[in-house]
Amino acid sequence: MNIIVKNGLILTMDADNSVIEDGYICIKDDYISHLGSGPCPFQTQKTLDANGGIILPGLINGHTHVPMSLFRGIADDLPLMEWLNNYIFPLESHVTAEFVYTGAMLACAEMIMTGTTTFCDMYMFEDEVARAAYETGMRCVVGEGLFDFDSPNYGPLKKGLVYTEELISKWHDSPTVNISVDPHSVFTCAPDLLITANELALKHDTLLVIHLAETLAEVKEVEDRYGKKPVQYLDSLGILGPHLIAAHCVHLDEEEINLLADNHVKIIHNPESNMKLASGVSPVPRLLASGITVGIGTDGCASNNNLDLFAEMDVSAKLHKLANMDPTVMTASEVLHMATIEGAKALSLDTVTGSLEQGKKADIIVVDTSQPNMVPMYNPCSNLVYSASGANVIHSIINGQIVMYNRELLSFDLCTVIDNARAFAKRIR
Amino acid sequence: MNIIVKNGLILTMDADNSVIEDGYICIKDDYISHLGSGPCPFQTQKTLDANGGIILPGLINGHTHVPMSLFRGIADDLPLMEWLNNYIFPLESHVTAEFVYTGAMLACAEMIMTGTTTFCDMYMFEDEVARAAYETGMRCVVGEGLFDFDSPNYGPLKKGLVYTEELISKWHDSPTVNISVDPHSVFTCAPDLLITANELALKHDTLLVIHLAETLAEVKEVEDRYGKKPVQYLDSLGILGPHLIAAHCVHLDEEEINLLADNHVKIIHNPESNMKLASGVSPVPRLLASGITVGIGTDGCASNNNLDLFAEMDVSAKLHKLANMDPTVMTASEVLHMATIEGAKALSLDTVTGSLEQGKKADIIVVDTSQPNMVPMYNPCSNLVYSASGANVIHSIINGQIVMYNRELLSFDLCTVIDNARAFAKRIR
Repeated sequence: MNIIVKNGLILTMDADNSVIEDGYICIKDDYISHLGSGPCPFQTQKTLDANGGIILPGLINGHTHVPMSLFRGIADDLPLMEWLNNYIFPLESHVTAEFVYTGAMLACAEMIMTGTTTFCDMYMFEDEVARAAYETGMRCVVGEGLFDFDSPNYGPLKKGLVYTEELISKWHDSPTVNISVDPHSVFTCAPDLLITANELALKHDTLLVIHLAETLAEVKEVEDRYGKKPVQYLDSLGILGPHLIAAHCVHLDEEEINLLADNHVKIIHNPESNMKLASGVSPVPRLLASGITVGIGTDGCASNNNLDLFAEMDVSAKLHKLANMDPTVMTASEVLHMATIEGAKALSLDTVTGSLEQGKKADIIVVDTSQPNMVPMYNPCSNLVYSASGANVIHSIINGQIVMYNRELLSFDLCTVIDNARAFAKRIR
Repeated sequence: MNIIVKNGLILTMDADNSVIEDGYICIKDDYISHLGSGPCPFQTQKTLDANGGIILPGLINGHTHVPMSLFRGIADDLPLMEWLNNYIFPLESHVTAEFVYTGAMLACAEMIMTGTTTFCDMYMFEDEVARAAYETGMRCVVGEGLFDFDSPNYGPLKKGLVYTEELISKWHDSPTVNISVDPHSVFTCAPDLLITANELALKHDTLLVIHLAETLAEVKEVEDRYGKKPVQYLDSLGILGPHLIAAHCVHLDEEEINLLADNHVKIIHNPESNMKLASGVSPVPRLLASGITVGIGTDGCASNNNLDLFAEMDVSAKLHKLANMDPTVMTASEVLHMATIEGAKALSLDTVTGSLEQGKKADIIVVDTSQPNMVPMYNPCSNLVYSASGANVIHSIINGQIVMYNRELLSFDLCTVIDNARAFAKRIR
């Protein structure tokens, strides 16, 4: 036994949705060796006292662009095209490896401090994101954004495919860093690239990550160009499958939803970004009813502008009640599942993380329930989704390593990360 | 000089929207005596160092029911009528003075710890809410809910009017507790009560607070009963005026908006509650364009489920972008104004609070900008609205009294408040 977490209400998020009162969890090396209730029969030198709080699986941020934390608040409240063409695209053309590493470290700090233990990232210079995740101890799926124009990282597309294969090879044996193949979107990638990317993913047995049906403009562009809706178009290329993760999926018709369901495509919902950019509302209740696995993500900091999955859960539950004019839609429990075990399923990591079960890797967070916003607690799930903020998370363990204890980050120096981020922001400004 | 707050970026929220870099604020007794930039030329024994953070006016929660913090998470995700008839109404029929005081203390703790310094409350046993506000040091406008059925507090309506006048008289000389007259709504109050309440408010020169046009069911009921839309109906009773605060205002037609604007009625927007109960979206951009003063509120904890105005600001900005499919709608600056100076105007407290200006009462909060979610900071307003949570607030001063220092509450004992709330919740369960 290396670590014991004790004296908390355990929400396991397992298949039976088991809840363990006065629970303990024993961690051996990187995995959960025992869970139980009452006094822990084992002893160890490292004990984390939950002080009567909630013990739950670390949250899973299913779609983000972590280096963009350095663009937090640089441009808001603008028309989409002005935001992209006058701010984000020009800024991104100057992105460097140092930028990516600096932003990723800042983002990892924020994510750990708000309860996220796993994230799925698409950006440029993703080896630097993998390095930041490795150094901070976070679990991740990262993929280099592939598109038809030149990248500040790899230059022409051909080299991007090579870079991706190098990433796959470099991180192959990492216990926490997973590599995906990431064609950016159906409007920035020609059919050839989509097909090649898919072949690469199948060849290396990795996930394939894409932005899909995020805006009406995208849908129109794809229809104009290919005479098909985005999902139909991907289907015509033979790309739909259980390895495909489609982020956003805001604008879908019934036929597209059926195609996604039939092909076991995974979807990541990004409600705050979709609201802030006025993209629309993803039909999540309809997706869930079709049996589609839906995770939840924050998207990048430029369109959110934080990485707090607790805020994302809250907004998600409320948004769909409003969109359906029905307060019974998207319960707190459904949303919490999306941020934990369903998110793990979406990333094909559900044998590893997303629930607290014997044999799974120890990705565990402890939420303080003695702050005023968490009192009283009739229903822990409700308090987590509707009342908590990420600041209520006090301890975090990832892959058996304590990365935060009493809100103090243990795996790296926060001050250095903040200083570096501020220095970089000065240069950007 | 009693207190100096220094070394922060001051967002004054004054008429010129002045920002003071490296600013200081001097407090004498209960008011702001000086503001300036650079080294403070005055000295005092009590200095609050903002450490380079943001200094801004305390936030104003324009509409809430603070005792309902004891119902936090007791029932969610239910059809509105089941939620009301099977949970909220039966629970409220047993409300006591002790319940109200216990819940109000818990709510004041949460509000102070998330940056609110003023709140406007409607509930029962409001003298207990006034007492909690007085003991914790919070500024408030409180009014006893008046309706046509018996109240657990005062019994028959007639006694409710007496109770209200007693409140007005009792708290008349309080520097921080203000009393309003609060007819609950157009569907729970007969025309006679609405008229009497209005007369009472005019007689004592108090505010008149009402729930208005919150749900489609309410609009239909009023139309069926009186042949008019809710605002037209209030107009026909002669009640519209600058002293009227209408909470919610979700379902309004153009004629009603014009009536509200012409009569200088104030509106409080409660986006999270309106989403969670699937009530709809208030046409806030349209209200603002009509020149109506709009503040922001959390509503009660049973339909939110927290009192964090930072979350409310974030959701508000995003909700209206989505509802209008236009990302330029409701800028961060507009929303921050709603939560500060516009909220103060709505409560007729803008000569007292809502901005940081010489001569105004000292209601001041300091936001830590060294946490990862606040780094970098290109635009302080954006970071406050889109990136912050209430947990980023470190110091709070209300009416010249330091109520929170480094997140420690100074005016009362938090542990006692939490213990009492938990004990009461056990009885409720």
